[in-house]
Parts: sequence; C-alpha cells; structure tokens
Amino acid sequence: MRIFISGLDGYLGWPLALHLTSAGHEVFGCDSFLRRRLVAEMGSQSAIPIATMEERIQGAKELTGDSITFREGDLQDYGFVESCLADFKPEAVVQLGQMPSAPFSMIDREHCLLTHQNNVIGNLNLLWAMRDVVPNAHLVKLGTMGEYGTPNVDIPEGFFEVEFRGRKATLSFPREAGSWYHQTKVHDSNNVNFACRIWGLRSTDIMQGVVFGTNTEWVGGDERLYTRLDFDEAFGTVINRFCAQAAISQPLTPYGSGHQKRGFLPLQDVMQCLTLVINNPPSRGEYRVINQFDQVFGVNELAGIVQEQAAAIGLDVKINSIEDPRIEAQEHYYKPDTDRLRELGYKPTPDIGPTVQIALRRLVENRERIQVSRAAILPRIRWDGGA
Amino acid sequence: MRIFISGLDGYLGWPLALHLTSAGHEVFGCDSFLRRRLVAEMGSQSAIPIATMEERIQGAKELTGDSITFREGDLQDYGFVESCLADFKPEAVVQLGQMPSAPFSMIDREHCLLTHQNNVIGNLNLLWAMRDVVPNAHLVKLGTMGEYGTPNVDIPEGFFEVEFRGRKATLSFPREAGSWYHQTKVHDSNNVNFACRIWGLRSTDIMQGVVFGTNTEWVGGDERLYTRLDFDEAFGTVINRFCAQAAISQPLTPYGSGHQKRGFLPLQDVMQCLTLVINNPPSRGEYRVINQFDQVFGVNELAGIVQEQAAAIGLDVKINSIEDPRIEAQEHYYKPDTDRLRELGYKPTPDIGPTVQIALRRLVENRERIQVSRAAILPRIRWDGGA
Repeated sequence: MRIFISGLDGYLGWPLALHLTSAGHEVFGCDSFLRRRLVAEMGSQSAIPIATMEERIQGAKELTGDSITFREGDLQDYGFVESCLADFKPEAVVQLGQMPSAPFSMIDREHCLLTHQNNVIGNLNLLWAMRDVVPNAHLVKLGTMGEYGTPNVDIPEGFFEVEFRGRKATLSFPREAGSWYHQTKVHDSNNVNFACRIWGLRSTDIMQGVVFGTNTEWVGGDERLYTRLDFDEAFGTVINRFCAQAAISQPLTPYGSGHQKRGFLPLQDVMQCLTLVINNPPSRGEYRVINQFDQVFGVNELAGIVQEQAAAIGLDVKINSIEDPRIEAQEHYYKPDTDRLRELGYKPTPDIGPTVQIALRRLVENRERIQVSRAAILPRIRWDGGA
Repeated sequence: MRIFISGLDGYLGWPLALHLTSAGHEVFGCDSFLRRRLVAEMGSQSAIPIATMEERIQGAKELTGDSITFREGDLQDYGFVESCLADFKPEAVVQLGQMPSAPFSMIDREHCLLTHQNNVIGNLNLLWAMRDVVPNAHLVKLGTMGEYGTPNVDIPEGFFEVEFRGRKATLSFPREAGSWYHQTKVHDSNNVNFACRIWGLRSTDIMQGVVFGTNTEWVGGDERLYTRLDFDEAFGTVINRFCAQAAISQPLTPYGSGHQKRGFLPLQDVMQCLTLVINNPPSRGEYRVINQFDQVFGVNELAGIVQEQAAAIGLDVKINSIEDPRIEAQEHYYKPDTDRLRELGYKPTPDIGPTVQIALRRLVENRERIQVSRAAILPRIRWDGGA
C-alpha cells in the first residue's frame, strides 16, 4: 500500500515508517521538524540521540532495501500538502503532524495560538487536499483519549446510543478536553467527522492513550534508527518521564493525588494497532472512532511499577508527590471501551514491566543527556496561569 | 454598566449598541468592517442603505445624548483587543465580531480557513485578553442553534443528564454542526467552556436561532441609525431573503423539501434577550448556555407567511422550491428547549406577521438596491463542492 505519514520525524512517525516499510508498504512522509525545535525551546533534548532524517533514511534503506521518501514542509502550507499528495497518491494518510503537548499549549497565549494554528489549520489543509487529490484514501487521524476528559460514565468509542425524555438517538459522545492542546484535537475530530459527512472521505479517528517505551522490533538494531524519547515537562509523557527520573536517581514526581487514571500502551503496540487500522479501512464516507490503549493505570501505580523495574536493575528510586500544576479531577471514574482494536486482532503486550525495564536500561545508557537537561523535568507550567 | 461590543457595525451589533445606550449603559465597540467587504465580495449590498460608523455615532448622540465609542480593528490582532479592554474596562463583553455565514464558509478552502482564523483565533484572543485585563467581566458569546444539528431527541440548553450503562452523568450535549462556519462556533463553545473552567471566567454562550426583520424601536426613526439587511445567498438569512425576493417579485425559493425546521426570533427580540442576559450574569467560573429563539418553523411554512404578508401589501408572490445546495436532513425531529430566557423574563413578540410586513415595506422602498444585486440571491455555493 502507498502510505503517507505527516510527522515522519516524530516519536511515533519514525518507528511507524520503519514498521510499515519492513512490512512491504511504500512509505512517504513529511515533517517540519517542529518537535525538535520545541523540545529545544523547553531547554531539553531527546534522551536518546536521534539521527538526522538523511541518516535515518539511509539506515532504513540498508535494513530493508527500500527507500522512505521524505519532504520537509509544514501542513500549514497548502501548496506543500497538495503537492505531497499529488506526487505520491497515497492510499492511506497517517496524520501525526501535530503539536502533541498539553503543557506546551498552556504556557501562554502565543503557545495556545501556535497549537491551534499548527493543529487545526494544518489538519484542515490536509482534509482539503485529500478531497481534491486522493478522496478515496483512508485518513488515519491521531487524536487522544484526553478529548473525552473523565466523565462519570463509561466512555464508548466515539458514539453512544442515549435515551433522553423517552426518545432514542445515536449521538457523538461529548468531549471535555483538559488543555488547549486537547481542545485542538476535539476541534479536529469535529472537522474530520464533518469532512466525511459532506465529501465522503473515510477516516479513522484514533483516541490514543498515553504511549511509553523506547523500542520497537526495528528501532533496536541501528543507532540511526532510534526514535526520540522526551522527558521534559511538556513533551515527556508520564511513564517516560518517570523512567528518565529513575535513570538519574531523581525522585519520581506524581502530580497531586496520583489517583488520576489514564489508558496506556507501549510504543510497539502503537505500531501493531496503527497497522491493523491501516489494513482495515472504513467505507467511503465513514467516520470511525477507535479508542487505542491497552490498560488503565493510576499515576501512583505507574510510579510504583517504574520504581520496581528500576530496583530490578539496581536503581534505588524514591517517589515524591508534588502539587498538581494541572486542573484535573483528582478522584474519578474511568472506564473507556477498547473493543474495536481487539476485534481487528490487537494482541496487547501482556505485561508492561519488561517494556519499562528496556526503556530504563536505554535511558541509563544516556543518563548524561538527561542530567544536563534535568531542570526541564519538574513542572513550571501551571493550568491556572500562576507562576 | 460598561459594555463592550465586538462587531459593532453588524446586523445585531449596531442596533444592540443603540438599545443599550438608550437604556443608560456606556457602550464601547470595535469592528473590522469585514462584513461590509464580504457582502461586496458576494456581489451584493445591504438592501437598506447604511451610514458610515461616524454618521451612525453622530446620529446616536443626537438621539440619546450619549456617545458610543468606536475603534476600528480586528480581533485577530491581540494588541488591539487587549488595548480595547484595558482602556474601556468593560463589565460585559458582547462577542458579535465573527464571520456569520454558513454558505460563505463552504465556498472553498480559503473561505473555510478565513472563517476558522477570524472566528476561532479572534475569539481566543478575546478570551486571553479578558483573562489578563477584565477577568471578572461577563462574556456574552454569540453561538448558534446550528451547533446542535438536528438530533432525534430534544435539545437541552447546553448540558443534559444521561444514564449510560447504569451510571449517570451530566454531560455537554453533543454538537453536530452542518457547515464550516457552524463548526467554528462549536470550536468556540468548547474553548469558552474551557476558559471558564481553568481561569474562572464567566460566560453565557448563546445558541441563537435565525434572526429576521429590519426594525427595533430605535432603528426606525433616523436613516443614519438603520441596521443592515442582507439578502444574498451567503449573508441573507432565510426570512430576510424571502422578503427581499418578495420585494422584487421574484419567487420565494425554499431549498429541498422545505420541511427543514429551525428556531427563529425577530431582531427586536434579540435586543430584549441580550439585555436580559447582560442584566443577569452567571457566577464567576460559570459557563451558561442559553438557547435563544422564540418559535420553530418549517421553511415552507415561512415561505407561506412571507407570501401572505406580501399579499397584504399588494405583492403577488410565487413559491418555487429549488434543489437544496446544502447537505442537511430534509425530514427530522426538532424540539429544542428554550426555558432559560423565559425564566429571565423574555416576552416574545406574539406574532411574526407584523415584523415580516414591516420588513417587506422597508424592502419595497429599497427594491432598486435588491434588483441590482438580484443575481446574488439564488444559491451557487454547494455543500458537496459541485458546480
């Protein structure tokens, strides 16, 4: 299949390109390298050194014999988006080309607007270009479980049947996103749904849980093929950040009660899930929502798992809860459905422990890089705008 | 009260400024004159000639003795927005400064993006400026009933209690907007709700029905005080467009089945409703949603009312249904709540007939202006992007 990946240089984009190329697909992609610049703005860097795109592509070619085609550019530039699709004529478009950090979007007005411009306008350009150039292609849009918030009922996959005052209807499940970043993903979901309705595009909107880990089967072998691993307060997701803290013997810092619950899945499972989604496209005009995660954990529970795996490799790590810089429910119900991926054949990694331990080992090898940017780990960005 | 109106030059903004000034409030406002430019782009003009802002303000001063303060500028310019709020320190901010046309937003990619930029980014700037300058002020945000779409259940005012798999929760009522313009209003609603949640802003988000008519009590007396009345396919709403067609003896053109139902209210009722909302602000941190309309009508029914009122003033008008250029449900359930405004004291105009007749008379006086732009009335903009 001919597959286009926007955000090819990212944490998910690069290993996905390798994974799909290795499976025999033709992979094309683009990136504006925004993520590399923004992590630098946070005073941080990827804990694992990553190669340039040229080196990555050369490494991939040596591994698989196939070339990944890359173009540098921004989804906010319509001419660029249109020419990518026109030249490559993809059958699937995997939209990972977005600013992915909740705290980053909360810094101030400029960062809130950058997030809206980059994510919402970029995604609209992609929708219009698909309509004009590849209307039959399958848009695999990366959203987030965070779009739903933490409602006091089960979270279905996108839609639910409700009875209200004696009548029934199938409605979109309401979103209550918890940051400007998450809001942009809600705006995107609404826009993608509408594009499917009016233009007959087909899309899978993936409500993804929090991803963690460093390795997929192809990323492990060659240094040029490593994907990035962020640990700063903005771009480091919780398990990865705990692993980085453990690697430099800094106490793990759950925010607030530590009872906040979220859905998680390891990096290698993302590859498996996205492949299943790509191989099983929805019909023309269908807007399909999939909740993509494996298990639900509380934050303290995760800190305990990282502490335990750290101990197993000889690291003595403490846990120090700190004030929650976010405005979020501290105690809440959380039970999202996740049936669709199982129905497509998803076989989750049975135990997250080994994935965490592999990440810890990899981060210990790179502890100097974490050490030098350690000031970027603890939260300074507050949801209420306070200092 | 000190009241700031963005979109002061618009169909609703100008008569609202007069209405509030006459009631003794201090009124400040801004406008970028976008609407005047876009109606010209559609090859049309206001059926009723409107004065320049300078003339309008002079007329208002002669009528009420009070000055309306105006600044020309764009909500997309943060410095402009911030300085307006800093200089005027309003207690209420009425946000009417948005691109209000569904068909306009559907023309092509450029118009879809202009709508997103103008509405979503402009509104974000206003939210940030309120946080920084007047966090205690009441934001009265104009949304639209079109945000909800046409679900097969009653439409509550913003939120509803649902039981799902045996658990209960109060959730935002799901939106299913029918154009890019309506999508931007949904994005705004989500953003305003979030700003109330994290910053403690207070806001009333008004899901407004379709407005019609030419007169309010102050607008009638002085030509400089008239508000605009658009009839082109993009900016003319359905009753106003039918009245303009009647005024030039063009057949009225319901789209499709004509069974599409919507909520409507006369222009003078908007003044009454917005005043009630301004006089009864929500608490700090509260995001209140109000459905603002009086009666639900089907489109054919409206055509019949306009035809009847036209006959009463000697105009013989035909009704010719035409193909629906929009993608919308032709037959559907429609029962939105509208209790909150009644609870605040809203007394609806009892019969829409006289309002329609007054509009017809005013438009007959200006039939030359409609005649010259008659090519702009019939729809050329299609939701499916066809020719």
